[in-house]
Amino acid sequence: MGKFEYSLGLNELKSKELRLWQALIGEFLGNLILNFFACGACTQIEDGTFKALAFGLAIFMAITIVGHLSGGHVNPAVTAGMLIAGRISLIRAIFYVVFQCLGAIAGTAAVKILLDPDYHNGLGHTTLAQNITELQGLGIEFFLGLLLVLVVFGACDPHKPDSRYTAPLAIGMAVTLGHLGTIRYTGASMNPARTVGTAFATDIWTAHWVYWVGPVLGGVAAALLYTQVLEAKPAPKVN
Amino acid sequence: MGKFEYSLGLNELKSKELRLWQALIGEFLGNLILNFFACGACTQIEDGTFKALAFGLAIFMAITIVGHLSGGHVNPAVTAGMLIAGRISLIRAIFYVVFQCLGAIAGTAAVKILLDPDYHNGLGHTTLAQNITELQGLGIEFFLGLLLVLVVFGACDPHKPDSRYTAPLAIGMAVTLGHLGTIRYTGASMNPARTVGTAFATDIWTAHWVYWVGPVLGGVAAALLYTQVLEAKPAPKVN
Amino acid sequence: MGKFEYSLGLNELKSKELRLWQALIGEFLGNLILNFFACGACTQIEDGTFKALAFGLAIFMAITIVGHLSGGHVNPAVTAGMLIAGRISLIRAIFYVVFQCLGAIAGTAAVKILLDPDYHNGLGHTTLAQNITELQGLGIEFFLGLLLVLVVFGACDPHKPDSRYTAPLAIGMAVTLGHLGTIRYTGASMNPARTVGTAFATDIWTAHWVYWVGPVLGGVAAALLYTQVLEAKPAPKVN
Amino acid sequence: MGKFEYSLGLNELKSKELRLWQALIGEFLGNLILNFFACGACTQIEDGTFKALAFGLAIFMAITIVGHLSGGHVNPAVTAGMLIAGRISLIRAIFYVVFQCLGAIAGTAAVKILLDPDYHNGLGHTTLAQNITELQGLGIEFFLGLLLVLVVFGACDPHKPDSRYTAPLAIGMAVTLGHLGTIRYTGASMNPARTVGTAFATDIWTAHWVYWVGPVLGGVAAALLYTQVLEAKPAPKVN
Ligand SMILES: [Ca+2]
Ligand SMILES: [Ca+2]
Ligand SMILES: [Ca+2]
Ligand SMILES: [Ca+2]
Repeated sequence: MGKFEYSLGLNELKSKELRLWQALIGEFLGNLILNFFACGACTQIEDGTFKALAFGLAIFMAITIVGHLSGGHVNPAVTAGMLIAGRISLIRAIFYVVFQCLGAIAGTAAVKILLDPDYHNGLGHTTLAQNITELQGLGIEFFLGLLLVLVVFGACDPHKPDSRYTAPLAIGMAVTLGHLGTIRYTGASMNPARTVGTAFATDIWTAHWVYWVGPVLGGVAAALLYTQVLEAKPAPKVN
Repeated sequence: MGKFEYSLGLNELKSKELRLWQALIGEFLGNLILNFFACGACTQIEDGTFKALAFGLAIFMAITIVGHLSGGHVNPAVTAGMLIAGRISLIRAIFYVVFQCLGAIAGTAAVKILLDPDYHNGLGHTTLAQNITELQGLGIEFFLGLLLVLVVFGACDPHKPDSRYTAPLAIGMAVTLGHLGTIRYTGASMNPARTVGTAFATDIWTAHWVYWVGPVLGGVAAALLYTQVLEAKPAPKVN
Repeated sequence: MGKFEYSLGLNELKSKELRLWQALIGEFLGNLILNFFACGACTQIEDGTFKALAFGLAIFMAITIVGHLSGGHVNPAVTAGMLIAGRISLIRAIFYVVFQCLGAIAGTAAVKILLDPDYHNGLGHTTLAQNITELQGLGIEFFLGLLLVLVVFGACDPHKPDSRYTAPLAIGMAVTLGHLGTIRYTGASMNPARTVGTAFATDIWTAHWVYWVGPVLGGVAAALLYTQVLEAKPAPKVN
Repeated sequence: MGKFEYSLGLNELKSKELRLWQALIGEFLGNLILNFFACGACTQIEDGTFKALAFGLAIFMAITIVGHLSGGHVNPAVTAGMLIAGRISLIRAIFYVVFQCLGAIAGTAAVKILLDPDYHNGLGHTTLAQNITELQGLGIEFFLGLLLVLVVFGACDPHKPDSRYTAPLAIGMAVTLGHLGTIRYTGASMNPARTVGTAFATDIWTAHWVYWVGPVLGGVAAALLYTQVLEAKPAPKVN
């Protein structure tokens, strides 16, 4: 069991043994990295590939740095999925989400301070594209949360040990894929904390509920779908 | 043998023990993800790298999520190759292809519903470029199916255990490479189900046969080439 | 020892046991894939990232498919390095280079046939940029061959077993890096066979010697540098 | 312990047994590759993704080639972090930094010689964007050094053995992420030696101190943060 130490979510039961404050520092730091570097990438005049890689690599890095402390959720939608799957307690989940949001706020605050306002370009805040309704945005963000949390469960499934070594990369690339698929329409948040961070700095809260309800519902649906339908059965011992 | 549980194709004999419906949900979900996110990427005004990464990462993600249930074909050309290689039964192959197509149809239907028509931009449907004949398109799609199924066999060869950990990534990157090489000319389908999904939504069936015959023939050729000529011989036990 | 079966170069001594024709089919097929997909990418109107990824992923795929048969050289510069390092016999090296060139010629011939001439755009042939002298081009191609063969030795060093699982990816990314660094100036061939393939199809042989002498000298220098200076010493057995 | 032979930093105590000159050749060569290929990429007229991938892949390659000799720092900020963490002696650290700078100078010198001046385009030298103050630049480069060294520690943590196989890739991708996030504002040096190399060739030393103090302070902060707060505790042996 010790082998899965760093993997995302699987070690929730174990990580209860860790001091909670270490996990919370981890979640804070992970979201700070995400909003500093990936939303920082959005302030530049570059194309969609540039931004999509930034978000995916930021998650890859965050899990590499803090995955062993907190499970490396770095996203309330992932935390919600883990809560539904019984892999994390409610109290811990609430603390996680608070520190995820604080980390994202800190990350975007640092971008805001370190860049001349001429370069802010919206600070990477997510908004709905013209003619995309809130309901459509909700559907898109639902699919984004669903994708991410399905990949978290698939990559960290203890019955599929071969996935373990590339799990942080796979989860990061799920975030990149989500951005490639939908960035033009909702900004491809996938992550309520990330959007809180930029909403706080820009004071733009339009359609903010979409960025909470969509990914969280998607994450919950993914947790139910994976654990109830898709989960790998233990391989029969061959002797 | 249990070690190869998640790898693509190798576990076909084993997966017959799994309930078929679980595998079919897996194939449906994999193709839904492919058409939702990767064809969704095609609706945006971005360059070829953007689209090529989206298709490759969608396959990487699909295998990560459902590879252990169904072998993670997510493509009738792969299923055809596995059928020829004797790794999957005919009845199972037919069911797979039906659910692959249904998943792709559902994925593109979701894109169509969630995006204002102004953003549809063809919904990522594959068509032959001007001055590319159907025969030329057939040849290109043949090479695409050949590449993909060769990589599936090479990455999942049980005699090459070192390939195992990066197999889902390698197969995804084969799809990215196929798009980089040929996207301008045929749209680089590589995958009849993916094209069925967008043909259904756009009701464009021009040269549709090319997108079935090309990849499937390529997949069959790859299966024969790999199993008859290239397959790794078991490493002699060193003691 | 059987564990290194698929890795590049290390298994040369072992692969002498394999029938030579299997290795030659492997080298032919690898270079065909390279010239079909990566030079095919060059015919499209896309940017440098697009092309650089295509060449790197083509090598990643070629090694995944045929690495266990031939060592997956797919490049006369790699073969030259392996020859100097004593990992492959002269006769085998000569056969490899012939089949690498034939594969590249076949790959570009297929592109030429399958695309309307309007799309040829030079078929991805490498030429020296304006104001880059042949001597400068030679220096650039020398560094390209040096980089590639250093990475081949570093990634496949049997004393560094942790590199093994990502070796095909690392070698592919060396090719991508080479293109990112120099594509504007020499086309970043790194590979005489690849350039033979496109020279044959376009009948352009200007400065052709640069594309042989540069990478081959670089590969030879890398083989000497790695084996004489850099090679990992066996880790002391800890008991 | 022998298992971590190639990983970055962890083997510092061990590598003291290696002859120092081998490690110094390693650091020299790593920085030469970085400045030749990645700064070479900056001389071309391409976008940010192109440059960001070049820097990240150059680090991935450098670690693949020389990581076992020197720990693969290839950056004075990493060396500073390792020094603070007690993983490398002061004398060794000073030698490393000297050879890192010499390697970077050699790499950019080679670019300068091999390219016609029309193609120099600043030789990839890092400068502060207009309206970015030196203090802001310092803050940005601090975050870049922090990110990189946190990833080095996280990926090479001996208590997280699953990270080992992809550590060189993860560290390279940290460098890519840093560039995606900030390249427009400071050039995203992250690495004093890299900037010395281009400053030497262009004789531009404006705000040069920023590129030393920022990454080094960030690296030191990361070393303290990781070792004092984040470090993985040994997994309890399960028997
Ligand atoms: Ca201003
Ligand atoms: Ca409309
Ligand atoms: Ca014509
Ligand atoms: Ca001139």
